[in-house]
Amino acid sequence: MKPFTTLKVPETLGFASATMDRVAAKRNDPAFIAEAFAAPDARFLILKEDVPVLSAPSDGTALFERSMLPPDLRSSEMIFLGRHGAGGQPVFVHVEATGSENPEQAMVETRTLIDLRSIAQQGLVPHDEVGLLACAKALSTWHRTHGFCSRCGARSRLADGGWKRVCESCSAEHFPRTDPVVIMVATHDDRVLLGRQPRFPPGMYSALAGFMEPGETIEAAVRREIYEEAGIRCGAVRYLGSQPWPFPMQLMIGAETEALHDTIDIDRDELEDARWFTRDEIKAMFRDEHPQGLKAPHPVAIAHHLLRAWFRG
Amino acid sequence: MKPFTTLKVPETLGFASATMDRVAAKRNDPAFIAEAFAAPDARFLILKEDVPVLSAPSDGTALFERSMLPPDLRSSEMIFLGRHGAGGQPVFVHVEATGSENPEQAMVETRTLIDLRSIAQQGLVPHDEVGLLACAKALSTWHRTHGFCSRCGARSRLADGGWKRVCESCSAEHFPRTDPVVIMVATHDDRVLLGRQPRFPPGMYSALAGFMEPGETIEAAVRREIYEEAGIRCGAVRYLGSQPWPFPMQLMIGAETEALHDTIDIDRDELEDARWFTRDEIKAMFRDEHPQGLKAPHPVAIAHHLLRAWFRG
Repeated sequence: MKPFTTLKVPETLGFASATMDRVAAKRNDPAFIAEAFAAPDARFLILKEDVPVLSAPSDGTALFERSMLPPDLRSSEMIFLGRHGAGGQPVFVHVEATGSENPEQAMVETRTLIDLRSIAQQGLVPHDEVGLLACAKALSTWHRTHGFCSRCGARSRLADGGWKRVCESCSAEHFPRTDPVVIMVATHDDRVLLGRQPRFPPGMYSALAGFMEPGETIEAAVRREIYEEAGIRCGAVRYLGSQPWPFPMQLMIGAETEALHDTIDIDRDELEDARWFTRDEIKAMFRDEHPQGLKAPHPVAIAHHLLRAWFRG
Repeated sequence: MKPFTTLKVPETLGFASATMDRVAAKRNDPAFIAEAFAAPDARFLILKEDVPVLSAPSDGTALFERSMLPPDLRSSEMIFLGRHGAGGQPVFVHVEATGSENPEQAMVETRTLIDLRSIAQQGLVPHDEVGLLACAKALSTWHRTHGFCSRCGARSRLADGGWKRVCESCSAEHFPRTDPVVIMVATHDDRVLLGRQPRFPPGMYSALAGFMEPGETIEAAVRREIYEEAGIRCGAVRYLGSQPWPFPMQLMIGAETEALHDTIDIDRDELEDARWFTRDEIKAMFRDEHPQGLKAPHPVAIAHHLLRAWFRG
């Protein structure tokens, strides 16, 4: 099997297409940030409690012009994502105050809040803007949940265009967090192992997944998770591809692994079910024709593409 | 090129060999933790300000019996790593108080503090114990730097055998952090790109590396880092293997990538030098016979094995 993400992620894979130039070397230059913020072609993503704001009726973009923002915003309070598109437009993220008593409330009638999964699944904005929103959401959630220094408990402040928080009290620097998660299909005798969590949509089965832990390789984490959740010992592990998954701030590391036996022992705290699927069943699920109505994961998720890779291979 | 970590990490790769059964489903059971703690065969790793403590003279193991610990320790203050070895010995991590006024000071004469890199490079303890120490160090550093809730600033407390911290004030739960880092060799015309940071040992060149960012795939991060640090645009990316790197708490994701040109533009804030190496030079570096005295990275680091894989391939 050939890895599918050597040069180009599949068009349908969600959240993986942030193509902006992050201009990382300039983030710590307040003059650069201020100038980018003031540029006439600067554009703004707006999030409210981590939910993207789109115009209503939708005009097909998540990028707002400055006139749609509340007045008196300062560049030092914004997240600078980078330069986007062929023209290199500076893109900032505006995180709105919560509650109803905020200056943006008056704008609500011309806007609509839509969760990021739905935006990706329904293709409400261009593919590369889904990537921008994914980056914006991970960063804004991180700021929202990291307003205090984990080392001393004092309030910290946003710095470096939103790519750092600084504690004035103990001088600690804090950086955005990304949690690596392994997600994998185990295979045995031309069948593939999938499971379902109680929170999944009815009938949907997907690849097993779990957070990596300190002291683990990717390969060890893949084998541990399959054993913990399905009681199956696995051998070889093959990396297939990766995807940012901003719910809230994960990196999905996709793999397949060879099961050494097919007896399943399900961890009922984690999974509602886990079972082997034949090639014919997977084919039927891709066509939404499975006799029991079972469904494959949506193409925005890497699990779909892990299954496709196994099916093709 | 075949991936080198499909089933087995190279014997010499450091920190990647924690083979303990983590017994993750039992971590939230205080009775289980207390029983494991009280077991006669329980063993203890000791860290002081993140530096492992070994016996002096070294007896070839980092695992201490209970008698080497201060009295009155409680299981609720310890990190439970899992069950280790063929006998399934419970292994805990004891993090000592800092400063000289602590109950362990009397034991200092029979003990020695040695940094984890040196332990791995000199093979002072068995390979699988280096893996235990790597896990222990990442967790203890995390606890030391996360004593306060990042959401509300209150003190948090250790829970679930050290695999969680809980804030009694706002009910937030915090989990150990692992930072994904890409580390890669770029190749062009049968040469390989290596660089050196000012802090490297004299003459050593290694693979370029950098922290992954929100909204990135592994493949995108590889290409961004090579471009930022060496000004080179890259195409295909191939995953080769991974390694936990507890300095302080990273996951190294090893790759190779095809450079689209060979002109280098070095970021002097990050690198002291970067250059292309021929196959003959790499061969000489592995034998420590490079005419200018240049050196390859040590085999405990994944960078060494990325180079070996390229050299073999």
